[in-house]
Amino acid sequence: MMTTQPLRLGIAGAGTVGASVLRLLAAQHDLLQQRAGRAFTIQAVSSRSPEKFNDLALGSARIEPDVFALAVAPDIDCVVELIGGSEGAAKTLVETALRGGKHVVTANKALLAQHGYALALLAEKNGVTLAFEAAVAGGVPIIKALREGAAANAITRVFGILNGTCNYILTQLAQTGRPFAAVLSDAQRLGYAEADPSFDIDGVDAGHKLAILASLAFGTRIDFSRVSISGIRALSDIDSAYAAELGYAIKLLGYAEPGVQRVSPFFVPLTAAIAHVNDVFNAVVFEGDYVGQVMIQGRGAGGNPTASAVVADLVDIAANRSSSPFGMPAAQLQSLPVESSDTALHEYYVRFMVNDRPGVVSAVAGALAEQGISIKTLQQRAAAGASVVPLLLTTYAAEAAALLRAVKTVETQGLLAEAAVVLPLLVV
Amino acid sequence: MMTTQPLRLGIAGAGTVGASVLRLLAAQHDLLQQRAGRAFTIQAVSSRSPEKFNDLALGSARIEPDVFALAVAPDIDCVVELIGGSEGAAKTLVETALRGGKHVVTANKALLAQHGYALALLAEKNGVTLAFEAAVAGGVPIIKALREGAAANAITRVFGILNGTCNYILTQLAQTGRPFAAVLSDAQRLGYAEADPSFDIDGVDAGHKLAILASLAFGTRIDFSRVSISGIRALSDIDSAYAAELGYAIKLLGYAEPGVQRVSPFFVPLTAAIAHVNDVFNAVVFEGDYVGQVMIQGRGAGGNPTASAVVADLVDIAANRSSSPFGMPAAQLQSLPVESSDTALHEYYVRFMVNDRPGVVSAVAGALAEQGISIKTLQQRAAAGASVVPLLLTTYAAEAAALLRAVKTVETQGLLAEAAVVLPLLVV
Repeated sequence: MMTTQPLRLGIAGAGTVGASVLRLLAAQHDLLQQRAGRAFTIQAVSSRSPEKFNDLALGSARIEPDVFALAVAPDIDCVVELIGGSEGAAKTLVETALRGGKHVVTANKALLAQHGYALALLAEKNGVTLAFEAAVAGGVPIIKALREGAAANAITRVFGILNGTCNYILTQLAQTGRPFAAVLSDAQRLGYAEADPSFDIDGVDAGHKLAILASLAFGTRIDFSRVSISGIRALSDIDSAYAAELGYAIKLLGYAEPGVQRVSPFFVPLTAAIAHVNDVFNAVVFEGDYVGQVMIQGRGAGGNPTASAVVADLVDIAANRSSSPFGMPAAQLQSLPVESSDTALHEYYVRFMVNDRPGVVSAVAGALAEQGISIKTLQQRAAAGASVVPLLLTTYAAEAAALLRAVKTVETQGLLAEAAVVLPLLVV
Repeated sequence: MMTTQPLRLGIAGAGTVGASVLRLLAAQHDLLQQRAGRAFTIQAVSSRSPEKFNDLALGSARIEPDVFALAVAPDIDCVVELIGGSEGAAKTLVETALRGGKHVVTANKALLAQHGYALALLAEKNGVTLAFEAAVAGGVPIIKALREGAAANAITRVFGILNGTCNYILTQLAQTGRPFAAVLSDAQRLGYAEADPSFDIDGVDAGHKLAILASLAFGTRIDFSRVSISGIRALSDIDSAYAAELGYAIKLLGYAEPGVQRVSPFFVPLTAAIAHVNDVFNAVVFEGDYVGQVMIQGRGAGGNPTASAVVADLVDIAANRSSSPFGMPAAQLQSLPVESSDTALHEYYVRFMVNDRPGVVSAVAGALAEQGISIKTLQQRAAAGASVVPLLLTTYAAEAAALLRAVKTVETQGLLAEAAVVLPLLVV
């Protein structure tokens, strides 16, 4: 028989998400009790900035000066970790809570990407749940959809727009035609990008989330070090404009298939629904051998959407619906194959910024021909008086290694004013 | 401690879905065992056409001539009902199985729409699960996403493209500009529409699915009789063309908000992602007070996608993840309010097929003005030599009742060659 005692929570973190979780738990008290079959009570909260709790309805919850007290308090069943960061307090808190037989709900993608496998083992050993719906795509229930909704399928691939900051910048780049630096600084001014934007725009955040999705999709041990990451910093409005001419949008995708884990800007055909997911929205596509393609989209960040996912995990725990963190017992998760050189053929977009002098096109075309790569489209833009001009091309299907050799050849000939930009075309 | 005994199944129905479920269970045996933590064994199957089992790998399963034997067999834990129909064998089988303490998984939307509340009470009384992910949008895990993924939210509305046949026809109507009858007969030839298409094109099937979604979303007792239904039979390529001119697509939507349950073709703005969900694909949007809008799309029909959803339910049952059928204990589900007259203001599209004679536009405009309804756009098409011409208009926000009074006035003046077509504009 299911217990009807309240699920007793300890909540660590009083940032945007922590505050939203506290507000949600108070505002939806009755609804949550109906759906979970039990009430939630907040026993204790903790934050490095406890004054932030002043504006929040804590009920009878105590404020713990020592966050680790949450992990050992006998009156807490479940710790909600909303501190963030892959090491330090967050890691110690989660480990201690799991060891102490407490369920853990977290929104911390960095922690999971770095230590998810060890934490899953720890959770199972202690017979408790480790849940992290909020760690990927915010409020969008992609983890539940993939892990449970698609449980009958072998997943053939999963890809998605996993970082709202990048998607906002890329959308602006395409829609305004303004230079990257201007668009970035607008995004910073509007609060869509951090003062130091590197975590987002260099693809690290998307890489963390992709590592989680890949583990769930393919039953592999999460391994962030094996995600190949290329961000959006080198992109320009020239790239977006050419993409649009050819019927594509540029999207930073996390992309995984068995043996492949990659974060990169892609040319995404406008015939694909995900090409039209704009601004700060997130979307994930998964492909199963029975269900085909499923896409789910919504708000990937923000206090309220993230709180929605955190509390959905709490409802599952309260209702006694438990899943292995990565969809099967952690001991059965496979290591990624050692060999991961990508011999698959893909079409590519390449931008060379060439010094405008005779023979450049011939040299580029020659370098590609030498590697057996056929050019599909080619455009050289004239720029009045400019000594550096963009040479834009797409290729027919080629091996990544062959393309990189061709690019290297062009680079070593001293024809380029800056490093070439190389993006894969998404096949949908 | 969780049992590791196999979950023992009895499967009723050997149609497209039944065959796909049997094939899936055989093909994914090991994967399912990893994900569910237990194996599945098929103890017995039953069909009115048992020869259909000849081509299927049944293992050691017996073929029961009497389908109701599945519901009482002591060696069966879970009955999978894939017979279809709201009454008769399907209903008796499900009731008997639930009474006998067996879990039930079904894809039967008609049964749920008509009897879902009573069946949910019966399941709870007997401490078993009644699961029906496959009943709405086929392989798309919308029921799980809404019931569990959005559990922290009060749902403000839910709407979706719930019938692939209608969406295929509407897509063809828009893309080819051919008349409705021609598009329908093509769809029938291609197997996308039944010989008798009324169940689909008159909106009944979408109505069944909407009734399920509304109950889940709003915690109300499912009540198909309170779904207002208008199908796509009266639509023409004229409507699609005008919609496109104004920046809309026509989609048959099931649309629910508290107190409103409606199936109707809508003008959907092209700025909404759901306007671009074409052909046989399904999509559902739900809107929660914390998560905002979430959309999920994929294949809404077909043997394999539907089997994916059926088996996902089986994995949940095997893994001991149970939910109340409609997201909260059935006894707590509320009756729909008696009063449901829609006093909200909506914008509308109206097509009048008018007898081409002087004073017609004036009469139509007068009838609308009399009800205080403002015209937003108006187009009368000239048709060389035709005595009947389309008069197309959209209105500013108006009450449905006022608009219908205006249309009635026009009709009673003998100006119309056929009944007016009235569609709401979706606000997103």
